[in-house]
Amino acid sequence: MKAVILAAGRGTRLGGVVKPLLKVAGREILSRTILLLLPYVDEFVIVAHSDKIAEYMEKNWKGRVKYTIVHNPAPERGNGYSFFLACKYLKGILSQSEKFILVMGDHVYSKEFIERAVEGEGLICDCNPKYINVDEATKVKCCNGRVENIGKNLKSFDCIDTGFFVLTPEIFSVAEEVVGEKEVVILSEIVGRAKLKVSHVSGQFWVDIDTKEELRKAKKHLLRLSVKGYGDGFVARNFNRRLSLQISERIVDFANPNQLTILTFLFGIFSAFVALVNTPLGGILYQISSILDGIDGEVARASLKTSRFGAWLDSILDRYVDFAFLVALAIVSKAWLISLFALIGLVMVSYSTERYKAAYFEDVYKKIPVMKYLPGKRDERIFTIMIFCLLGYITELLWLLAIITNARVLATMLVVWKYERDKR
Amino acid sequence: MKAVILAAGRGTRLGGVVKPLLKVAGREILSRTILLLLPYVDEFVIVAHSDKIAEYMEKNWKGRVKYTIVHNPAPERGNGYSFFLACKYLKGILSQSEKFILVMGDHVYSKEFIERAVEGEGLICDCNPKYINVDEATKVKCCNGRVENIGKNLKSFDCIDTGFFVLTPEIFSVAEEVVGEKEVVILSEIVGRAKLKVSHVSGQFWVDIDTKEELRKAKKHLLRLSVKGYGDGFVARNFNRRLSLQISERIVDFANPNQLTILTFLFGIFSAFVALVNTPLGGILYQISSILDGIDGEVARASLKTSRFGAWLDSILDRYVDFAFLVALAIVSKAWLISLFALIGLVMVSYSTERYKAAYFEDVYKKIPVMKYLPGKRDERIFTIMIFCLLGYITELLWLLAIITNARVLATMLVVWKYERDKR
Repeated sequence: MKAVILAAGRGTRLGGVVKPLLKVAGREILSRTILLLLPYVDEFVIVAHSDKIAEYMEKNWKGRVKYTIVHNPAPERGNGYSFFLACKYLKGILSQSEKFILVMGDHVYSKEFIERAVEGEGLICDCNPKYINVDEATKVKCCNGRVENIGKNLKSFDCIDTGFFVLTPEIFSVAEEVVGEKEVVILSEIVGRAKLKVSHVSGQFWVDIDTKEELRKAKKHLLRLSVKGYGDGFVARNFNRRLSLQISERIVDFANPNQLTILTFLFGIFSAFVALVNTPLGGILYQISSILDGIDGEVARASLKTSRFGAWLDSILDRYVDFAFLVALAIVSKAWLISLFALIGLVMVSYSTERYKAAYFEDVYKKIPVMKYLPGKRDERIFTIMIFCLLGYITELLWLLAIITNARVLATMLVVWKYERDKR
Repeated sequence: MKAVILAAGRGTRLGGVVKPLLKVAGREILSRTILLLLPYVDEFVIVAHSDKIAEYMEKNWKGRVKYTIVHNPAPERGNGYSFFLACKYLKGILSQSEKFILVMGDHVYSKEFIERAVEGEGLICDCNPKYINVDEATKVKCCNGRVENIGKNLKSFDCIDTGFFVLTPEIFSVAEEVVGEKEVVILSEIVGRAKLKVSHVSGQFWVDIDTKEELRKAKKHLLRLSVKGYGDGFVARNFNRRLSLQISERIVDFANPNQLTILTFLFGIFSAFVALVNTPLGGILYQISSILDGIDGEVARASLKTSRFGAWLDSILDRYVDFAFLVALAIVSKAWLISLFALIGLVMVSYSTERYKAAYFEDVYKKIPVMKYLPGKRDERIFTIMIFCLLGYITELLWLLAIITNARVLATMLVVWKYERDKR
């Protein structure tokens, strides 16, 4: 499919900035849209007024995607006019019933939204908009699955225009007609006149950015949505994530996930060295490293910078941090034998679930939900370790760790075995 | 696709047994063929004389695959007549140009053969038959990519008939014609008359089973081919596998892979207990457990009984065996601190490669071939441990293990990082 991105808006309320080039959670809106559409789209048609768009595309996307910039010399004629210019370009290259995507260049969408929206037809609407100010939004009144009325000031409406469309060339003539009649054309007029079909993608994240406040909120939401809940234990959900999200919010716009991974690793190793001389303080630092450990993933996912290498590296380094702290505890307590049992358990908790993914190409927490309720996840372990370090019960702690972690591995084996047996 | 399996042969040279029901490396030939064709086939048409075939199918495959038994009351009329009966059945259900598979019920094929053969057209031939007796085989002379001449006694020939065909209904009329002319019809006559297209799948494993000797050889070959080479180190390749294959050959027909996994695990744990009282003997037993550890995988792959659960369980239990033996060494030597380092390294060697597979859904040894040359695979480690146990240098051994294994993990990180960087 081709995708049209309308990026000629003037960003008046943001002091005339080029909105598609605003960074939201570490990525420019335009790059976000391109990245998310990339699996479905073979050419991007970007309608722009500012030269900055062309410069940006040349610098960041040249050779990576096929794109065409359609210049709009008169952005004051409205986004309907921008769309009309895109139609003129598309007319020459689209076959009669070939679908194409139309998307607003100043809207931020989540991956989940896009995945479902590309399957839709006509105007994609949201019946349950969670993240936007409905007063400011374009409302849609439907009739028989088509747009009956559309506008910002509708009193009675069914859903909200998300700025995302899956269209066919049938709309070209309507665009021409409306542009012929008026000087300033907003897209809604064309949409209303065409009586477009309406598809629904409801409750997913999408926002349009008009003010600094909305920009800040979008960042916050994207970070919050970047927490992949199913691997988190009780402590992470209720405590660590609240703090790590605060930090992520402050650094997401400039931080590099892999560097964060390395920094967190170094901090973890440092906490182990501290524990050698001052175990309570070491325990506190270790818990802090556990909070920091959430940041790289949050930043990577929110800024669409996840990499398999990053996830892999993070896992390995986490194991070595746990190892280093355990060595410190073993040295402090001299409870060597039980330390060996605690160490194998510590690593095998992760090994058993990761090895599951390697065998089944699926996450065991997703596939077998009961796994979520097994205690002994890393965040819970580290919090427990801190408490025991503060209380000074190191040998008891090592016993506890050895038992809990290995019991968790055994439980995992039983759960998976039972699941396999019941499947037949 | 539909698949026809000719299973009406009389097995004269094997004393009149129903050859498709012979077990080769733990699986009946018929089940082997069905299992391997399952990804490509939606209905099996099995031409049979003996009632045992129908009984066997009812017991083992009913409800799992769609199949039809076509009874051949006169097997003495040759396999061409069996094929003719299959054609009569297929005529009613196949559309004009719908491809179907024809395969001999007494031939054993490898997965690799089948994968390539189903992509072919006409008669699948082998230009480089490695596993069969060419004197006894059906030879094929080609001309312009079609069968020119076919028979057991051709003086001049290009390749060997593998007993596997991908056909279209065009052949039906030829089969009718030949069966109308003769009482006893061998399939080769129909193939020759039809001047079938010839496709080549060369050098892969396939055999036809006529004698006990061939049966024994086929089992041996299947086991040998079941060794997945890329995970093996020097010791496994040159020593362990030779012994484990000998054992596998003796037990493959009745052994259950998961039970073997558990037995090997118990033997490994036993070796660790022995090491506590007699370290050299423990070392020898540990090395034996390393040999035994190959058997479950060989048996599972050769008998097409691999399971993701089995592979997963085996990995976890291997780690615990290594742990148990290391604990024994730590207790014997009292070199506790270095034992912790050896233990983390031991587990992380496997963790880093398995975690890679979980992240990339690919085997790191296949993706980055240089990984194969890193020393410190499990078979090499265990052999080294045995040697040091025999010599009595336990503390030195622990140092060596700690260094080699952790260096290997570090090397893995560098290799993967470099690979990722160069990829861009």
